[in-house]
Amino acid sequence: MAKNNNNFNYKAPKNKPAKNKAPMKKLSKFKVIPLGGLGEIGKNMTVVEYEDDIIVVDCGVGFPDDSMPGVDLVIPDITYLEENADRMRGFVLTHGHEDHIGALPYVLRMVNAPVYGTLLTLGIVESKLEEHGLVSSCTLNQVNAGDKIKLGKFTVEFIHVNHSIADACALAITTEAGTLLFTGDFKIDLTPIQGEPMNLTRFGELGKEGVLALFMESTNAERAGYTMSERTVGKSLSEIFVSNPDKRIIIATFSSNVHRVQQIINFSHKYGRKVVLSGRSMVSIINAAVKYGYMDIPEGTIIDINDTKRFKPSEITIVTTGSQGEPMSALSRMALSEHTKVTLGPDDLVVISASTIPGNEKDVTKITNEILKKGVTLLNDEVADVHVSGHACAEELKLIMLLAKPKYFVPMHGEYRHMKRNCMLAQDMGIPSENMMISEIGSVIEIGEDVFRSIEKVPSGKVLIDGLGVGDVGSVVLRDRRHLAEDGIIIVVATVDEDTMQILSGPDIISRGFVYVKESEELMEELRKKAHETLERCLWDGMTEWNLIKGKVKDTLTNYIFSISKRKPMILPIIMEL
Amino acid sequence: MAKNNNNFNYKAPKNKPAKNKAPMKKLSKFKVIPLGGLGEIGKNMTVVEYEDDIIVVDCGVGFPDDSMPGVDLVIPDITYLEENADRMRGFVLTHGHEDHIGALPYVLRMVNAPVYGTLLTLGIVESKLEEHGLVSSCTLNQVNAGDKIKLGKFTVEFIHVNHSIADACALAITTEAGTLLFTGDFKIDLTPIQGEPMNLTRFGELGKEGVLALFMESTNAERAGYTMSERTVGKSLSEIFVSNPDKRIIIATFSSNVHRVQQIINFSHKYGRKVVLSGRSMVSIINAAVKYGYMDIPEGTIIDINDTKRFKPSEITIVTTGSQGEPMSALSRMALSEHTKVTLGPDDLVVISASTIPGNEKDVTKITNEILKKGVTLLNDEVADVHVSGHACAEELKLIMLLAKPKYFVPMHGEYRHMKRNCMLAQDMGIPSENMMISEIGSVIEIGEDVFRSIEKVPSGKVLIDGLGVGDVGSVVLRDRRHLAEDGIIIVVATVDEDTMQILSGPDIISRGFVYVKESEELMEELRKKAHETLERCLWDGMTEWNLIKGKVKDTLTNYIFSISKRKPMILPIIMEL
Repeated sequence: MAKNNNNFNYKAPKNKPAKNKAPMKKLSKFKVIPLGGLGEIGKNMTVVEYEDDIIVVDCGVGFPDDSMPGVDLVIPDITYLEENADRMRGFVLTHGHEDHIGALPYVLRMVNAPVYGTLLTLGIVESKLEEHGLVSSCTLNQVNAGDKIKLGKFTVEFIHVNHSIADACALAITTEAGTLLFTGDFKIDLTPIQGEPMNLTRFGELGKEGVLALFMESTNAERAGYTMSERTVGKSLSEIFVSNPDKRIIIATFSSNVHRVQQIINFSHKYGRKVVLSGRSMVSIINAAVKYGYMDIPEGTIIDINDTKRFKPSEITIVTTGSQGEPMSALSRMALSEHTKVTLGPDDLVVISASTIPGNEKDVTKITNEILKKGVTLLNDEVADVHVSGHACAEELKLIMLLAKPKYFVPMHGEYRHMKRNCMLAQDMGIPSENMMISEIGSVIEIGEDVFRSIEKVPSGKVLIDGLGVGDVGSVVLRDRRHLAEDGIIIVVATVDEDTMQILSGPDIISRGFVYVKESEELMEELRKKAHETLERCLWDGMTEWNLIKGKVKDTLTNYIFSISKRKPMILPIIMEL
Repeated sequence: MAKNNNNFNYKAPKNKPAKNKAPMKKLSKFKVIPLGGLGEIGKNMTVVEYEDDIIVVDCGVGFPDDSMPGVDLVIPDITYLEENADRMRGFVLTHGHEDHIGALPYVLRMVNAPVYGTLLTLGIVESKLEEHGLVSSCTLNQVNAGDKIKLGKFTVEFIHVNHSIADACALAITTEAGTLLFTGDFKIDLTPIQGEPMNLTRFGELGKEGVLALFMESTNAERAGYTMSERTVGKSLSEIFVSNPDKRIIIATFSSNVHRVQQIINFSHKYGRKVVLSGRSMVSIINAAVKYGYMDIPEGTIIDINDTKRFKPSEITIVTTGSQGEPMSALSRMALSEHTKVTLGPDDLVVISASTIPGNEKDVTKITNEILKKGVTLLNDEVADVHVSGHACAEELKLIMLLAKPKYFVPMHGEYRHMKRNCMLAQDMGIPSENMMISEIGSVIEIGEDVFRSIEKVPSGKVLIDGLGVGDVGSVVLRDRRHLAEDGIIIVVATVDEDTMQILSGPDIISRGFVYVKESEELMEELRKKAHETLERCLWDGMTEWNLIKGKVKDTLTNYIFSISKRKPMILPIIMEL
């Protein structure tokens, strides 16, 4: 957990902001290089370069898909930053979600530059750096929405936006070449739970002053209309509390959605319930939010899970992680009767106050089934208005385009289909198609008043994190893992006398993940015979190249196994020389 | 492909149907045992038993989930049927989808009983049996909707229903103990493309005569209202053909949805296009449907893919498999530029005329992105009415409950959440909750006029099919595969002199799927040293039990690797004795 005093190295905005009005004479162009966040969900990171200065917008992680077994996290390849570390002026963060900040503990080790973000964002970053033992070696500089900071030749202005986490900002990045406007993730919430609606006026002012290029998130570009206010969820939650006075209420949501949790706490307090926070990230983020004043919790409302016995179940609300069916989450453990403190039953009401992120459908269905089997009443966003998105829908995106009046348009943050749709919206708003570009990771976009083009590529891609290893797992290792997963491995091991070329022992056959060995003894014996024959023939034929001999053994067994079973296990011959 | 003449052993309905009126005296009860299709999608199979006779309703396969790497198919455990093979009177099939017939090639090998189904259903079964070289050893008996057949003490009546495949039936299974009504998969299509609407009158008649228990599918129980008619898709498709006269049109759909394909062919013919069938199952099922008279294709409309060069792209429609983003499907190969005959570009319109089956979202999104990147126009069921479900929604389910007036109610075919919702619908229709049961796989339901209870369990579960192997992959093998996939394997191999207990060679370290070896040479050397030390110490200490020694080596390396990398590869020590 973060310490109690705020130990960020606070830097007041220094220097005057650069004039937003584009100057007459433009010496240089921007170079913008997305290193993540295009064509895939997660790991947002964009390099912005002007003359000798580089800043980086966001520094997020992604999560592995099925093709990357055993991989924990995916971060962008930052070779380019490492090569240009001397030009790095800082990381500027839009908000505190994992896909925007999660790579910092790995990236700062390699490129240590100051980090700029709002209070809650840095609070979350700080606790991550603490986990990695990095907090003392990194510089975190807190800013407020409305602040402008000077980083080399850049002026970066933080502009308040609404999102499913507090303290989110868009960034206006200005040099003498003009202004680039990064929306970050946002929605327009006209009635937010806490704080102000998004600063639309500032977007309009920037539009009047002149926005050279708008870099806009695309997550909900395919959805028509407007995203509903977070407050609408409150109405549904309130009704749920009123109509279920006899039930224990368990609500699963994203831990970073502090406004959602705030509402749940408010209703719990109002209807005489104590609140238990369940799940490691829920506890740590809510504590950070309380510490920095983003939540207002009535005294005594939050209790420890061990103190629930002093209350009736109908006097308890549990707020938990696990809305995506994550196998090790608190909700999942409750569903599978593996939670030591919470046993679900017919007197419980479970509310999944989240939407299912694409790819998690099966996990969510699995825990849904398990929860229902226990006789629990279950509400989710399919049957009740218990969730709203944190991302702008089509009309909101178009509204921001209208206000910002950008000359050039670059969709970001989303699958290709979402970015494509965002471009169609931009066309509806009158931006000519030659002034927009769906970029690719690693592609350098050169931007100036009269220039908007992709000029080259820098090293880029995915760096896989597996345990403590960063980048030591790659395509060959993953290909082996997938092969092992599909059909297992058969190891053939023999000891051979180097001088006489006689087989001294073996070959033995050992298999893992192939078939039940006890029920396949005949097959194993057959494999042993075939391996022995092949090996002996090779030695008799005077072959001395071990790799050739191993190749022969491998081919023989591969062909035999495929012919009888249509499987292709990995065959690994090992010859010990004596 | 199926042969040209119909070689089913046609049996006319024999004997008079049993009286549907329940007799006064009931000697015995039904036993109904679901062996699949409950709480999971796929592999529907239900045993129905009365006195000495057993029949089986459907015989489907399921598909493996992420926890079963390398597994091709999942079939129900049929130990119970094997033990009672002498009482087996036949398999009765509701329709020709994989999850209702796909296990027959495996099950018939073990329990060979006659198979009863409609013409198209058996046509699909026959081509499957041919692939497995089983067609001569199995008996396929064709029936028509409306037929009643006598199987031991059972009378089985086939009742026409609508579904996303032609020739689907519900089954009324009658003995002197009463009538069990299995809906199979169905929807009520008032304006079907071919054939009649579902035979609602017969459901009503059975209801008047008395239905003891209704076994009802649950797939769409959570969806309110009615499923739209297949004909509504035609309107959208027609508009698409009219408004895209200059494009080549590529439509991906389920190969078994012959009515969908029929509509596509009709519109292609009407608007002067030739049709290419792409994908193995598309070709084989459409050929079967044509052969048995379920489709009506204008002469010369279907052309070979190699003949497309004789036409302009705008004169071509391609009907393809791959609507679920299946990695090896024709559409997927087109999307990834791996298709040898079809190259996608801006002059193409791709229509995905299907909904995404839960679990396939990521695959579908992946090919969607790739298709859009080629500048192709893409339509799917999110933006156009190009698909309707084949399953009844809530109002249809309730309508059938109303007509059939069952005493007892058993939801089937769906996830637990769907079956639960189906029970809620049944309660709305006045069926008392004590007269309904969400059963479990392998659980024996005893059903009679005054009895409705779960009495025991029979052996049941999943049998995994991997290549040609049936059941030789199980939980231990899968656990190993998952372990190998997560962290790879490290093999430690040494040769030891049995007499002197000296290490003669090794230990060598070989790894696969762990980390890049070249970049981890130090680690490998460290592992070799630790293995050597441990082995030597064991031998010096006079340990002779190889398993103990191997355990020591394994523990040492496991702990060391975890301490430095937080990973747990499989460690496999091998000691060769000389």
